[in-house]
Amino acid sequence: MTDSSNDVARTSSNFTLPVRVYIEDTDAGGIIFHAKYLHYMERARTEWVRSRGVGLRSGLGDNISYVVQKINIHYAAPGYLDDELLVTADLVGAGRVWMEFDQRVSRKGDGRELSRANVRVACVALDSGRPRRLPDDLSELLKQQLAAKTS
Amino acid sequence: MTDSSNDVARTSSNFTLPVRVYIEDTDAGGIIFHAKYLHYMERARTEWVRSRGVGLRSGLGDNISYVVQKINIHYAAPGYLDDELLVTADLVGAGRVWMEFDQRVSRKGDGRELSRANVRVACVALDSGRPRRLPDDLSELLKQQLAAKTS
Amino acid sequence: MTDSSNDVARTSSNFTLPVRVYIEDTDAGGIIFHAKYLHYMERARTEWVRSRGVGLRSGLGDNISYVVQKINIHYAAPGYLDDELLVTADLVGAGRVWMEFDQRVSRKGDGRELSRANVRVACVALDSGRPRRLPDDLSELLKQQLAAKTS
Amino acid sequence: MTDSSNDVARTSSNFTLPVRVYIEDTDAGGIIFHAKYLHYMERARTEWVRSRGVGLRSGLGDNISYVVQKINIHYAAPGYLDDELLVTADLVGAGRVWMEFDQRVSRKGDGRELSRANVRVACVALDSGRPRRLPDDLSELLKQQLAAKTS
Repeated sequence: MTDSSNDVARTSSNFTLPVRVYIEDTDAGGIIFHAKYLHYMERARTEWVRSRGVGLRSGLGDNISYVVQKINIHYAAPGYLDDELLVTADLVGAGRVWMEFDQRVSRKGDGRELSRANVRVACVALDSGRPRRLPDDLSELLKQQLAAKTS
Repeated sequence: MTDSSNDVARTSSNFTLPVRVYIEDTDAGGIIFHAKYLHYMERARTEWVRSRGVGLRSGLGDNISYVVQKINIHYAAPGYLDDELLVTADLVGAGRVWMEFDQRVSRKGDGRELSRANVRVACVALDSGRPRRLPDDLSELLKQQLAAKTS
Repeated sequence: MTDSSNDVARTSSNFTLPVRVYIEDTDAGGIIFHAKYLHYMERARTEWVRSRGVGLRSGLGDNISYVVQKINIHYAAPGYLDDELLVTADLVGAGRVWMEFDQRVSRKGDGRELSRANVRVACVALDSGRPRRLPDDLSELLKQQLAAKTS
Repeated sequence: MTDSSNDVARTSSNFTLPVRVYIEDTDAGGIIFHAKYLHYMERARTEWVRSRGVGLRSGLGDNISYVVQKINIHYAAPGYLDDELLVTADLVGAGRVWMEFDQRVSRKGDGRELSRANVRVACVALDSGRPRRLPDDLSELLKQQLAAKTS
């Protein structure tokens, strides 16, 4: 493995979504309401999956849904109205029914990291809520991503 | 019709839900975010229906859902963190597929009216989204309420 | 006034913001929660103002905030998870302390209009909540927009 | 220490807030949107503090605000529309500028635990965002609670 192949791997597994902070995201403390970071991170995971050709809505049509199993989130600095944020989603693990991401939210202007989290998401049947295998196209995508990272 | 029967009618058609304002409800302007009033009003309509024995979730199981068709809302004064609000839902009209409410949000402390709205809600089939007749129990309830008001 | 100048006017006063529908925007009815449209419309007004060089956060620093005074909104069709929406903000009036917009939310895919609203916003002092004159730069911008429309 | 005194201690430090699930809390997966549990838990912390005579809004007036520093949350089972939830807030630690809670969300109907979390909250100056000592009344309250638990 060379340094350059390592760079390629990192690039291929990282995904960044720009997000603008609106008044709806803020609270009377003058900062982004803490639960909103979970929204931002969910948007980034969704866009990462979409950018690979997997749509959530078509999943619902096939009785497939996704639920968050656990989140470990740290808040390092406050975000403010009008901030431009960069939200990453980096796949760090996957099993038959789950996938795990490291995610960060930073401010574009000064590069300050506002929040970071580890998030595990599981695939479930929409009707019963029971765990089910990840759909084949998503499962294949996850394997490729993880292989690219560790190669 | 006597004054006292009129009072009874008014009481029977009015419904008031107490709501506390949390930090999640506020924005960086230091006040309740304007869209939150629609949440409060929806909660009051839901609790009014529930108080009459009609549950929304059992409706979903029967392929019945409700959608808002129009809202005309005025904001008179700001609400603040920790405020105790009183949210009313007063049925003012109903048809085969719709019901219409006058609703107000006031602050318990000083009685100040913060917002008032007229809201029309329609019954739809959950799967197709198409308008459908209100369920019989709800339709009967609405008729009774309107009859009590105008008697 | 000629037809072509009218077209120019319309173009100059219209503003369109693309918005993606995420799982956070939907409800158990399978559609966009009705209050979310107020968020989308607020974002579009904010981006329209920003595109003209006026930032909301710098306003807060100058003790200037904005509050919604009234909204008249109609819902024509449901929006769904993953939908790409187009949200417009078209200035239709302004006074010393207020501005008024016509706004629409449509689905990019099929062009279907989902919702339309008339929204009046007032300028207030952040600390007291009292109405105050619109800032000069914004007031000038509004005049130009309205002049362009009616010329 | 006897078993019975231990029971008293536990009771004194535990706090339970009932919360109803409304359509605004759900998503197109038919369940409570995962970020909403952070709202529920924040409400329970707020009501626990309020029940001890400490209000958040008066804090804002004294340039005191609170920010979440970290959350470790697990989701065990989905919650649904119309569910009645019980949300606990149990103080488990405190320092000069922070307090830490164990919190659970369970469904009243079947007693099922839906989510549990450990949450650390810090006191900051509202204007600068910098950490500051907890206000004396709150600090004293926290000490009493922790002493009662470990006595």
